[in-house]
Amino acid sequence: MAVLQFELEVTDQVSKARAGTITTDHGQIQTPIFMPVGTAGSVKAVSQQQLKEDVQAQIILGNTYHLYLRPGLDVLEQAGGLHRFNAWDRPILTDSGGYQVFSLASSRKITEEGVLFQSHIDGSRHLFTPENVMDIQRTIGADIIMAFDECPPYPSEYAYAKKSMELTHRWLDRCFTQFNNTPDKYGYTQNLFPIIQGSTFADLRKASSEYIASKNAAGNAIGGLSVGEPDNMMYEYTELCCDLLPVHKPRYLMGVGTPWNILECIALGVDMFDCVMPTRNGRNAMLFTSKGVINIDNKKWEKDNSPLDDGIDCTVSNLYSKAYLRHLMKAKEILGLTIASVHNLAFYLWLVKEARKHIQAGDFLSWKNEQVQILQQRL
Amino acid sequence: MAVLQFELEVTDQVSKARAGTITTDHGQIQTPIFMPVGTAGSVKAVSQQQLKEDVQAQIILGNTYHLYLRPGLDVLEQAGGLHRFNAWDRPILTDSGGYQVFSLASSRKITEEGVLFQSHIDGSRHLFTPENVMDIQRTIGADIIMAFDECPPYPSEYAYAKKSMELTHRWLDRCFTQFNNTPDKYGYTQNLFPIIQGSTFADLRKASSEYIASKNAAGNAIGGLSVGEPDNMMYEYTELCCDLLPVHKPRYLMGVGTPWNILECIALGVDMFDCVMPTRNGRNAMLFTSKGVINIDNKKWEKDNSPLDDGIDCTVSNLYSKAYLRHLMKAKEILGLTIASVHNLAFYLWLVKEARKHIQAGDFLSWKNEQVQILQQRL
Ligand SMILES: [Zn+2]
Ligand SMILES: [Zn+2]
Repeated sequence: MAVLQFELEVTDQVSKARAGTITTDHGQIQTPIFMPVGTAGSVKAVSQQQLKEDVQAQIILGNTYHLYLRPGLDVLEQAGGLHRFNAWDRPILTDSGGYQVFSLASSRKITEEGVLFQSHIDGSRHLFTPENVMDIQRTIGADIIMAFDECPPYPSEYAYAKKSMELTHRWLDRCFTQFNNTPDKYGYTQNLFPIIQGSTFADLRKASSEYIASKNAAGNAIGGLSVGEPDNMMYEYTELCCDLLPVHKPRYLMGVGTPWNILECIALGVDMFDCVMPTRNGRNAMLFTSKGVINIDNKKWEKDNSPLDDGIDCTVSNLYSKAYLRHLMKAKEILGLTIASVHNLAFYLWLVKEARKHIQAGDFLSWKNEQVQILQQRL
Repeated sequence: MAVLQFELEVTDQVSKARAGTITTDHGQIQTPIFMPVGTAGSVKAVSQQQLKEDVQAQIILGNTYHLYLRPGLDVLEQAGGLHRFNAWDRPILTDSGGYQVFSLASSRKITEEGVLFQSHIDGSRHLFTPENVMDIQRTIGADIIMAFDECPPYPSEYAYAKKSMELTHRWLDRCFTQFNNTPDKYGYTQNLFPIIQGSTFADLRKASSEYIASKNAAGNAIGGLSVGEPDNMMYEYTELCCDLLPVHKPRYLMGVGTPWNILECIALGVDMFDCVMPTRNGRNAMLFTSKGVINIDNKKWEKDNSPLDDGIDCTVSNLYSKAYLRHLMKAKEILGLTIASVHNLAFYLWLVKEARKHIQAGDFLSWKNEQVQILQQRL
């Protein structure tokens, strides 16, 4: 079994967009790629068969914070890791739990050692450190595991952002030490991606990008964006980071975003994305389609028997009508949540696949500029 | 297009079990059959693809009361009927709404004319009559539609049960008159099944069975059972009714029941079943399996990585482990509801398919007696 490989196949001549292939021990990933979020070992309301057949997902995420608390490490270890536990045999990436500790835990205290927090489920106390988060992710068993970092809110004071970034860097050293001193747990290779922080300060972002690049990791991530800052600011720092990261390693922009955010960031050199938006918004009746944005609760869809989206190649999006999905949502039928989630994810996967095709065809930028207009339309 | 046909292929020599084939304009149904309940146009938490591929459902139900209130007849008519609306191209049966009016509506008043009731959704007032319930079911567009009846509770006084049965019979005449005076709505043939009532009184059940049999309908139903009476009483009246119904027409026992109820009633001559139990109990963590009953919330399954049920040929039942489903239920993940529902329905469909095989093989009774023991075991 081998360390994650990234073959950069095409670099766009006009934008900074790239098309490549990541190879892991659980199979290949064609980039640019969107990764559905499977928080607690399940992409909400979507089955693993639907992820494969309808969504055509190539890699999914798991959340360390959630999986550590429930089902817990002993259950995951007994199963032989998350792939066996949730019957997903393609690549998995786990985040480090840092972000969730700050956004979900009912209390938390940061020290040099790590973060002491209370579970949002039962109030129990836990300590996450760079070392035990490596061990936890080894036990969960993802193909790609993330460094333990602190993600400062937006906006942050410069002094806080700098101190936080320096802590994240010291934690990163400890992550790599622990990671390098521990074996793969289940016979396949796990890969550690470090994370750039630095909030919305150019000199911090530059320093962090250079520090992360110096680690020569199998892939690199940009964190701390899409936390409330304006889109243009997100694009600015994404570009700054991408420009300083190694060319021949995949670049993962964490937690981004809308379909148009994704297209813009592909143009800046990002290869990997994740976001809860397609599933969360889907559960709230918002559909992203190849023709624009739909609020399926709207009365205008009541008798519209056209397919959800015939512009993409997903069975679910073509089989069910807008009128039917609207009815399911109004009647609070669980199937409505599933159809909306499957469709939105399939749309995201369609979008990155199309982007890849247009990068390969050499007309990415003009296609992207056109799509960004179409996809934001309110239908 | 043609009236529903029933070919009786095998009648068991030892029990009264039968194997046959129903032919409708939306395809064939192998009996004995279990029909998943799709109350509001969706079998709860299960997609139409899962119904076909995993559950292997041959026919599903819709509920007239629910569909009439939401999405409403104009939406269903605009779609071209329920098959088009919910993208289910196999046979559909709708109940008459009688049962729901009595169990769900927030107030109701029965007269000779029909039932005046208030919607449980918005309190709006509606009148169901034998005539308009035929029209409503024509518009919903099921292949098999049910007569409008009154279903007395258990226990009922003799006088009440008799009066109720007589009303149901008068309503039945009006149903047939309206049904025969109205055309099929969407180009395929719709078929009206009358319903036997009579509560738990042998002379009433006999009179009702004879009255229903005299209608020479394409198929016949036994109603008013599985409403709280002991199992043995249900079996007793099911057998009484079956014995008086035409041999060469399918017999539908409404709202039954547990897997062992179904096996016992197949042995008494029933061909068709429906029940919310597999989906409702599934959503409450109760699994029916080929080895017995499982409460998947139980701590004993926490680290059990064996498949949900490797004794049946459903992908979902074989793919996911008991430990994983338990975790999903504990974490209140929607996928848990889906997996439990798909599995339970697949088990019910497996059970009737096995029953059919054993009727054809001539060893149904001994197989049934063995299964009834196994299936009731608590694992
Ligand atoms: Zn294209
Ligand atoms: Zn068998």
